[in-house]
Amino acid sequence: MSALRPADRIGILGGGQLGRMLALAAARLGLDVVIFDPDPDCPAGRVAAQLVCAPYEDLAAVARFAASVQAVTFEFENVPVASAREAARHAPLRPGAQALETAQDRVTEKTFLNAHGAQTVAFRPVASAQDARDAMVALGAPAILKTRRFGYDGKGQAVVRSADEAAAAFERFQSRPAILEAFAPFRRELSIVAARGADGAVRAYPVSENRHADGILRESFAPARISAFAAAEADRIARAILDALDYVGVIAVELFELEDGSLRVNEIAPRVHNTGHWTMDACAACQFEQHVRAVAGWPLGDPSALRSARMINLIGSEAGDWPRWLAEPGANLHLYGKREAREGRKMGHVTLTGPLSRG
Amino acid sequence: MSALRPADRIGILGGGQLGRMLALAAARLGLDVVIFDPDPDCPAGRVAAQLVCAPYEDLAAVARFAASVQAVTFEFENVPVASAREAARHAPLRPGAQALETAQDRVTEKTFLNAHGAQTVAFRPVASAQDARDAMVALGAPAILKTRRFGYDGKGQAVVRSADEAAAAFERFQSRPAILEAFAPFRRELSIVAARGADGAVRAYPVSENRHADGILRESFAPARISAFAAAEADRIARAILDALDYVGVIAVELFELEDGSLRVNEIAPRVHNTGHWTMDACAACQFEQHVRAVAGWPLGDPSALRSARMINLIGSEAGDWPRWLAEPGANLHLYGKREAREGRKMGHVTLTGPLSRG
Repeated sequence: MSALRPADRIGILGGGQLGRMLALAAARLGLDVVIFDPDPDCPAGRVAAQLVCAPYEDLAAVARFAASVQAVTFEFENVPVASAREAARHAPLRPGAQALETAQDRVTEKTFLNAHGAQTVAFRPVASAQDARDAMVALGAPAILKTRRFGYDGKGQAVVRSADEAAAAFERFQSRPAILEAFAPFRRELSIVAARGADGAVRAYPVSENRHADGILRESFAPARISAFAAAEADRIARAILDALDYVGVIAVELFELEDGSLRVNEIAPRVHNTGHWTMDACAACQFEQHVRAVAGWPLGDPSALRSARMINLIGSEAGDWPRWLAEPGANLHLYGKREAREGRKMGHVTLTGPLSRG
Repeated sequence: MSALRPADRIGILGGGQLGRMLALAAARLGLDVVIFDPDPDCPAGRVAAQLVCAPYEDLAAVARFAASVQAVTFEFENVPVASAREAARHAPLRPGAQALETAQDRVTEKTFLNAHGAQTVAFRPVASAQDARDAMVALGAPAILKTRRFGYDGKGQAVVRSADEAAAAFERFQSRPAILEAFAPFRRELSIVAARGADGAVRAYPVSENRHADGILRESFAPARISAFAAAEADRIARAILDALDYVGVIAVELFELEDGSLRVNEIAPRVHNTGHWTMDACAACQFEQHVRAVAGWPLGDPSALRSARMINLIGSEAGDWPRWLAEPGANLHLYGKREAREGRKMGHVTLTGPLSRG
């Protein structure tokens, strides 16, 4: 369990906005950052000590990158597992490749979760159109067909209402391995962001309530107004997952709160997460600092909320509202330095904070 | 009055810790930063989109640098005025060269301050050993002899108690142009950090109380527990200075609070300032964001304190305490990425925050 020292280097696979915010947090703690990203103009590369530009599949480049830093982490869960394993040969990889493998495949992920006391919705693996029909019969309509791998922000998902629709959706996804998930009649979408240190200590942030539209997160409110029971249950689930994976770093667990108040895990993200952005402006130590601390082998920081927060994503053309947000008293504007505001692209976010409500 | 747009570039003359923290604040707002510093391994260069490495006196390099960005600012007041003027030919320079010229010479500075309703201690310019003797007779012992230019962190200063000592100190400073300042029997050292936008709006942070040792800032406490009268007077002084200089950006005004409660300006710093570091962890918008907003031609942010703060500098070997501060619950550790902990060198700082005391 090696710990980094000030002016040591952390390598980050991925140079998007999460890598950028990680790099800023690392810099505040006196660390240098090396970004690995195929895009020479990626957002994180412009705030890092060095940018290594190569495809994620280039194992020789990954090896050189990892050998040049004291610890490696990643900002997205679709890093090729072979590349992660190659990096781990040259520097501590935190979290480890097992977390990546678990999160990259929805069937593996849900099987893992259920095995460790974290309930999910019912599901069936789908490898053929006939599987899709059979699964539909078993789970009942409506259900959601998703590709097993490489989905994000609602891509590769379809709501299906009959065996025919399920089979058609499977074929529309080019017959890639898929999963059919029972529909969760949820009351609210919640998430818990938590961290585990190299020493095994776990610290969880207050649960946030999240609102999605078209599969993309629009807003988070935190701390969520949930029962003490639900808060304890979210905490228990996060700890069970972190311990089972012998995890080091920040993880996000997306949850459905059902009508009866019970929780189901929707999915896990083995990285800092959009639903934790509110912590930057409202918590003692934010999720990016927390992840850097864990990756560096340092003690975790204090995840307590000092303020209540509403985090609003700026998506696509909404980034054009930046002058309004800049002029809004007390609004904390974060822009990611992306040059093109394509539809559905996360361009920045705003956090509004207020006093913590008591009890 | 041109305003920058996201992904535009700000140029910063100077790549020390202030440049580094400015660069991090600019990055959060979606701007790219270009650092100009002769040191290829300077702290700010490792968090910037680009580092231009050249002597500050290299006017051609300064011209190319300024032409490549949309606005230029600086992180230290000893930028050669000729270089600042050259930069201003190619991009808006904020604050302007007049602020630099005023702050670089202690006689010019105090003359300017007195002319604009900001009282200083009594002083006399000293150009010769005889001047030093005469000034000592006029001001009385003890007094402080300082070089007019290029002093910082207590360098180029001597307390003198007789005409002989004053003459000897002048000669020890290689007969460089100097100033003799009357001793201020102050009760406390205060400072006010304030900003003026390109639109002329002024926003001041709460006053901080500062403790120096050997001419180097050790700690700041904020908001300072001062009378409403003193707070209003500090605010009035900061506004008078900002308006008189047609200033754009953050300025720091160091103040002595005398036994009778009145204030004297010790010196001004035309930049973000060590006594404003507490704002990073305790204010709605910190001094670095505020300076970036001003330089970008954007509306100023909210300088309100949300928390009370105690900021502790980590100087020289004190940086070795980093593991203790990392483990201290709620402590906000900032390290500057400097590789060598030389004596007297500012290596980082820690901010401890607490609830605001009422009244």
